[in-house]
Amino acid sequence: MTDFTGPEKEGLYKAIFSRRDVRSHFIQKDIPDDVLFRILNAAHHAPSVGFSQPWNFILIKDEGTRQQVKDSFARERDRSIKMLEGEKERQGQYAKLKLEGILESALNVCVTYDPTRFGPFVLGRTSIEDTGVYSVCCAIQNLWLAARAEGVGVGWVSILSNEDLEKALDIPAHVKPVAYLCLGYVEEFAPRPDLERVGWLPRMDLAKAVCYEKWGTHQPKEWKGLQDAVR
Amino acid sequence: MTDFTGPEKEGLYKAIFSRRDVRSHFIQKDIPDDVLFRILNAAHHAPSVGFSQPWNFILIKDEGTRQQVKDSFARERDRSIKMLEGEKERQGQYAKLKLEGILESALNVCVTYDPTRFGPFVLGRTSIEDTGVYSVCCAIQNLWLAARAEGVGVGWVSILSNEDLEKALDIPAHVKPVAYLCLGYVEEFAPRPDLERVGWLPRMDLAKAVCYEKWGTHQPKEWKGLQDAVR
Repeated sequence: MTDFTGPEKEGLYKAIFSRRDVRSHFIQKDIPDDVLFRILNAAHHAPSVGFSQPWNFILIKDEGTRQQVKDSFARERDRSIKMLEGEKERQGQYAKLKLEGILESALNVCVTYDPTRFGPFVLGRTSIEDTGVYSVCCAIQNLWLAARAEGVGVGWVSILSNEDLEKALDIPAHVKPVAYLCLGYVEEFAPRPDLERVGWLPRMDLAKAVCYEKWGTHQPKEWKGLQDAVR
Repeated sequence: MTDFTGPEKEGLYKAIFSRRDVRSHFIQKDIPDDVLFRILNAAHHAPSVGFSQPWNFILIKDEGTRQQVKDSFARERDRSIKMLEGEKERQGQYAKLKLEGILESALNVCVTYDPTRFGPFVLGRTSIEDTGVYSVCCAIQNLWLAARAEGVGVGWVSILSNEDLEKALDIPAHVKPVAYLCLGYVEEFAPRPDLERVGWLPRMDLAKAVCYEKWGTHQPKEWKGLQDAVR
């Protein structure tokens, strides 16, 4: 019941399962234009509410701009560490983590959301306004998977001030930064996520994330087969 | 510079480019448990801020629940059509579109965001609160691509009231519905998105979505090679 060959299906799952949020292991090597094109084109073919395609991709190599973003990261990281004042062990663990590769990666990409694109009436965005920004997130995940298949690592830097980003990149008031990504070839893709490996948090059992018919219902007997499959 | 074989890479791109938002063409055939498991497990391996994995998947087959959701869709669709009062042609075009497959699809899946998961301190969510819900969107895109590779169509119904969903599915106050999806095997995946095919909106040129170094800069000569590639 699928038009995918075995290796084609495996390729998708390989990208999904071996994709990592990369903060270190970047190597000094430019991403060729054709590779970067394929990665951006994959993002551009994400689903979007009402086919509004509300994304932009700002590609950043300039060192001055990157340093501004890095400074924003440093301030926000310090603020975050202070929030853990009451949990000394956790705080120490946090402080040791490498959380971004802004300066070491080959390229930074800021992905933004423009709610005015093809608007003001956007089909399907009339009840839930947020579906516009959700479309941009789907594009980011496409970008991330395509990069993985091309051997390019991606790290999402979320410890940042959006106001700082808006200033550094001349983003107009009506446009919202959604993600700040660091892209580059890497020495390796780690077998497990960094935060799982260092014991920050475990991977949750899928069975706990799945509910049947209503929120909070985890073991109805009508769904026994699937429960056995997800366990 | 990649550890993906040709067919593996092609498989990922095939899923990305041939994925559709499916509203019709659903056929009467259950999704086997092992297939559904792979689709959900793909979603569960999305990136998440601070490895918080803040998603849940509520699987819905019950006809009464679906009818409640369909009623919500009908109300919101009517409201949306009224918004186009001043644009009669557009309004007529909208009214003819098939926008959901709630009752005809094999399975409905509501994907939710739980901000309390592994909280209250979530690493990386301390500066930009929205990164939590962005993680859930990445999981939705993984689900969508995995479904495509399995031959299963997915339609995202965004013309809905979240309050109605919360009532119909017993979703607690602290949890936010993010997407309501219709899943099922389909007769075909259309070669182009429905809204592009019927002329609702065109696909934007990728070149217009890409900026260089700053917002709004589209043709700096330092980036000539990439500009030629994205054109």
